[in-house]
Amino acid sequence: MRIDIISVLPELMESPFKTSILKRAMDKGLAEVHFHHLRDWSTNKHRQIDDEPYGGGAGMVMMVEPLDKCISELKSQRNYDEVIYLTPDGITLNQKIANTLSIKNNLIFLCGHYKGIDQRVRDLHITKEISIGDYVLTGGELAACVLADSVIRLIPGVLNDEQSALTDSFQDDLLSPPIYTRPENYKGLEVPKILLSGNFAKIEEWRHEEAVRITREKRPDLL
Amino acid sequence: MRIDIISVLPELMESPFKTSILKRAMDKGLAEVHFHHLRDWSTNKHRQIDDEPYGGGAGMVMMVEPLDKCISELKSQRNYDEVIYLTPDGITLNQKIANTLSIKNNLIFLCGHYKGIDQRVRDLHITKEISIGDYVLTGGELAACVLADSVIRLIPGVLNDEQSALTDSFQDDLLSPPIYTRPENYKGLEVPKILLSGNFAKIEEWRHEEAVRITREKRPDLL
Repeated sequence: MRIDIISVLPELMESPFKTSILKRAMDKGLAEVHFHHLRDWSTNKHRQIDDEPYGGGAGMVMMVEPLDKCISELKSQRNYDEVIYLTPDGITLNQKIANTLSIKNNLIFLCGHYKGIDQRVRDLHITKEISIGDYVLTGGELAACVLADSVIRLIPGVLNDEQSALTDSFQDDLLSPPIYTRPENYKGLEVPKILLSGNFAKIEEWRHEEAVRITREKRPDLL
Repeated sequence: MRIDIISVLPELMESPFKTSILKRAMDKGLAEVHFHHLRDWSTNKHRQIDDEPYGGGAGMVMMVEPLDKCISELKSQRNYDEVIYLTPDGITLNQKIANTLSIKNNLIFLCGHYKGIDQRVRDLHITKEISIGDYVLTGGELAACVLADSVIRLIPGVLNDEQSALTDSFQDDLLSPPIYTRPENYKGLEVPKILLSGNFAKIEEWRHEEAVRITREKRPDLL
């Protein structure tokens, strides 16, 4: 998988892609991520990429021309499955969307910043608008990191222990059951006896019951 | 505001906190963020902080003792308003939660990793469990960055243009209306005439109507 990320602040995304699973995926050649600094596509000597909104109001708007040039150049080089704009008014990311994107070949992520992008960029290029949740961030950069992480970890071979991804929360619409590790007794707090029983059929049954109980308590909307 | 972030991978969070709004908030003295590497609270020479789950199954579990020691030490130094565990089975972050947290003084963010934390840490210390959305990430580190960004930008004085935060998506349960900046005509795509009219009452009316229309189309659940 190749992901091209367009941003006015690519340096914000440095450390997440140099660490952990994202780095491992890139080291293994399972994913490549390319950052594009939007100012490189500015059409004036001040490297301007934003301007005031028509009709007045607070906040700056990312201009259509630099974005159009950048995206058009990328599209001339290869076919993209999706050109994704990270924005709080997109569809809300969930595990199904992450699963679907994890089998794509080429993706563009466009990080919104300031007040957002000129509507005409959406009309011209954007095929999917994704929000990572109902809250406002300073820019789309963290959202792009989140989306990349949620997608890249699902590419076969990225996780060392693929079984682990399959039993994560949301893969079966249930939250995870409680988990425990050593010691058995910590300051009087004991591990549930069932987990020490060695009866794996019973343990699985208990875990499923707990997952259902916890989901019902915390997130009945998932059931 | 002071945020203490406990993690097995603090280096993942380096660049987001060195850039943009988070950096500005820290430079202005409006927020301070301290990272705590969980391995520093390990009780053995291998700096172990995770172990296999009781009852079997894939994935490692973050042990209770290092986490208990780390959180207890922090709590002995000051009063915390909340000890927040970032986990996919927490309550889903939204703008109201971000608003509420933005007026707190001291927060602990605990980043889950691997399969999660020993249940007894939740029982002993955690006052709030927050998920940034219904998808699985490699760890809670990006979630901690997202939560910090959503909260810190709301602290008065952090944004240059406070008006801008007030008109963001979600602050009034409406998505944003379309925005445009120069040029008026780009490859035949024109800015809506109303925005060039100079009639600000009419413009505000149009924006509100568009915001309602877009919210109805994309996110009727918000209305």
